[in-house]
Amino acid sequence: MTSESPSRRALIGWGGAGLALGAAAAGGAVAMARTGDDTPAPTTAIPFHGAHQAGIATPVQDRLHFASFDVQTEDRAEFVRMLKDWTAAARRMTAGHPVGEGGFGGLPEAPPDDTGEALGLQPSRLTLTIGFGPSLFEKFGLADARPEALVDLPKFAGDNLDRNRSGGDLCVQACADDPQVAVHAIRNLARIGFGKVVIRWSQLGFGKTSSTTPEAQTPRNLMGFKDGTRNIAGTETDRLKKFVWVDGKDGPDWMAGGSYLVARRIRMHIETWDRTSLQEQEDIFGRDKGEGAPVGKAKERDEPFLKAMLPTAHVRLAHPDSNDGATLLRRGYSFTDGTDGLGRLDAGLFFLAYQKDVRRGFIPVQRNLATDTLNEYIQHVGSAVYAIPPGVRDKDDWWGRALFAGEA
Amino acid sequence: MTSESPSRRALIGWGGAGLALGAAAAGGAVAMARTGDDTPAPTTAIPFHGAHQAGIATPVQDRLHFASFDVQTEDRAEFVRMLKDWTAAARRMTAGHPVGEGGFGGLPEAPPDDTGEALGLQPSRLTLTIGFGPSLFEKFGLADARPEALVDLPKFAGDNLDRNRSGGDLCVQACADDPQVAVHAIRNLARIGFGKVVIRWSQLGFGKTSSTTPEAQTPRNLMGFKDGTRNIAGTETDRLKKFVWVDGKDGPDWMAGGSYLVARRIRMHIETWDRTSLQEQEDIFGRDKGEGAPVGKAKERDEPFLKAMLPTAHVRLAHPDSNDGATLLRRGYSFTDGTDGLGRLDAGLFFLAYQKDVRRGFIPVQRNLATDTLNEYIQHVGSAVYAIPPGVRDKDDWWGRALFAGEA
Ligand code: HEM
Ligand code: HEM
Repeated sequence: MTSESPSRRALIGWGGAGLALGAAAAGGAVAMARTGDDTPAPTTAIPFHGAHQAGIATPVQDRLHFASFDVQTEDRAEFVRMLKDWTAAARRMTAGHPVGEGGFGGLPEAPPDDTGEALGLQPSRLTLTIGFGPSLFEKFGLADARPEALVDLPKFAGDNLDRNRSGGDLCVQACADDPQVAVHAIRNLARIGFGKVVIRWSQLGFGKTSSTTPEAQTPRNLMGFKDGTRNIAGTETDRLKKFVWVDGKDGPDWMAGGSYLVARRIRMHIETWDRTSLQEQEDIFGRDKGEGAPVGKAKERDEPFLKAMLPTAHVRLAHPDSNDGATLLRRGYSFTDGTDGLGRLDAGLFFLAYQKDVRRGFIPVQRNLATDTLNEYIQHVGSAVYAIPPGVRDKDDWWGRALFAGEA
Repeated sequence: MTSESPSRRALIGWGGAGLALGAAAAGGAVAMARTGDDTPAPTTAIPFHGAHQAGIATPVQDRLHFASFDVQTEDRAEFVRMLKDWTAAARRMTAGHPVGEGGFGGLPEAPPDDTGEALGLQPSRLTLTIGFGPSLFEKFGLADARPEALVDLPKFAGDNLDRNRSGGDLCVQACADDPQVAVHAIRNLARIGFGKVVIRWSQLGFGKTSSTTPEAQTPRNLMGFKDGTRNIAGTETDRLKKFVWVDGKDGPDWMAGGSYLVARRIRMHIETWDRTSLQEQEDIFGRDKGEGAPVGKAKERDEPFLKAMLPTAHVRLAHPDSNDGATLLRRGYSFTDGTDGLGRLDAGLFFLAYQKDVRRGFIPVQRNLATDTLNEYIQHVGSAVYAIPPGVRDKDDWWGRALFAGEA
């Protein structure tokens, strides 16, 4: 495991960093630690190596940049090389280092190894989580390796999906407490992937809507309700094992320790919602707005009594007891992407859910939500599903090795 | 001045907050303070009242939500009533309170006074700054009140403006350290304005690119350079007076204590920039990338020696010495709005500059930037200009009073 967690600033020099700093007058890379106005701050790096990828059970960070890519190259070796380069870059960035071995700017006559906008920022608990979409398995002779559990999602009632915000051959979920760190990471991966992959769509999330740390204050979604109260906590090893992590017997060997991710861009009709009475809002969720307590209960963490809720209440319909026990790890973010042509905020929930098997996770729950009264105020406009491979074990391992090198 | 700066959470109750909390079984507003997992945190409210609006000389907050509105009503009294309602809401929100007198949820059968997603969050140094666009003065019989300094911006070389991201009758700049607080504020103002105004466009900024506190670490823009090094500091009373605040002799009485704002959405060609050599990047700005020092100097804060820079360098062309002393207070933010149809990040700088007179501020500087080599990597795609009225003095004052009530 990487235990370094320094300030990005403290480790960086740049070629051409100013003559009087004593940098070489021209040419070579300058191996010089930055000095300056460092203020001691909590350095916060999440280990990149492990049995599972970080960014799933990791306590939810404040901000998100999610990118879905399409593959452009047909050359398997070139694609594998890119996955290795990505892994090396991800390992450095999550530890708070700039991209590029040595961490220094490089030659003046070459483009810098790192785009630079995260210099001086903390690691900010950056996690980078890669996923492989169904369409990737149509390429590079991977058809046989496609997991059964990686099904194409069916069409659900009410779906109004935009092709340009759906699908993709692979994805990277970047989460960090500082948005600039998340944006920097995706941008540098896109840069490294230039000519091999291209971003199909991307989504910025400005506020987490679930927490995987029950002791923390539950965040509120853009409907003003606490969201994520009943979620799988990152510390609940048993439930993670039961509902989130793929094990050897669930599917192909290369997925052991992995998971499946469903991403849905859900637009909220904010303006209509805001003119709905408090009572109706609370009926729709089956929880009260202030405290977040289930109907008839006093406290947010009290056990919901489903029969006290309307049969169309979101919490009642989404609860495991209404879905043969199906349980998701939710990790969504609020988004606001400006305004549509009608002066309405283009805002909502970028829903992210991790699970062991989509067929016993998102699909049955979303089907059960067909009668949810919440549907009058939301619309699913983007959709994607990905196989999330296991974690990168050590410094010689790389994203997707078990899939591409055919090892367990 | 408002000196309250409590946690939003500490002051809030909601009607219908759960039976066992002892709330009234039905009906009336419940005046109950929230209890729960409050953690003591620095409470950070910026005073709303003052001679100038907050959000200009205020130390730059981390995040931005900027909205430009068009007026729909033709009824002057109705519009004035909305400005008063907006002022009351802004006063409460900047102090960390929810919208609505008393701060409680209201009746179950009515829509809540506040949309709720900022409950439990800190004031987060929220500032709300209102501005009036040129087109507002074509309405409500305001033509004679239009300040001479509020000129329509000319077309500049390279402009490629999108109507749907330009102009607007009025604007609100919401800045806060927490994006959810900024988004909440704009959304609640839009809600209060329903039927009277409609959002024309809005812009989220995820990272500040200038600082008005020179002792803080200078933030980096998406080109990886420190941005805002040479800016007017919020504490430089003399330069603020000289370059930013309108005084009695500069224009109409109602603008005394106000300013003018130019907003430009500037797209960066990130992918091209990332393939440019370090040397060329540094030549383009006239500063080095690591430290931010001007060409030939050692330290970021060293005085630039303009003649050492290429004649096409951004800093040389933008510097007051190249512009008859013209000086701007910059307050821009980085944005990333997903991806365009070609897989390129729709990212750049949402440039915001405050000045005493646009004709001796933004216009000459931007004209001088026509030969800037930076232009190969950027494009201005949105533009707006606003008169920023003076501050709201006290609890009886309101945004725009001097303009609409005809007082000084
Ligand atoms: C914009 C759309 C949505 C909003 C605003 C929303 C909001 C909420 C809220 C406020 C809760 C109660 C607090 C909590 O336990 O987290 C909740 C619970 C839940 N939601 Fe959603 N949700 C949305 C969409 C979805 C979707 C698409 C799914 C899955 C298909 C889903 C699955 C769940 C589950 C499993 C629970 C927990 C139920 C329980 O165990 O009590 N939600 N949601
Ligand atoms: C994407 C577009 C732009 C980028 C990336 C950019 C970046 C920078 C950078 C890195 C600096 C040097 C550090 C500093 O003193 O802040 C700077 C300085 C400056 N820029 Fe820009 N800038 C952009 C657009 C503009 C525009 C449109 C204007 C005004 C019309 C402007 C006016 C200035 C001024 C006045 C300075 C300070 C010059 C001095 O006093 O040394 N910039 N800019």
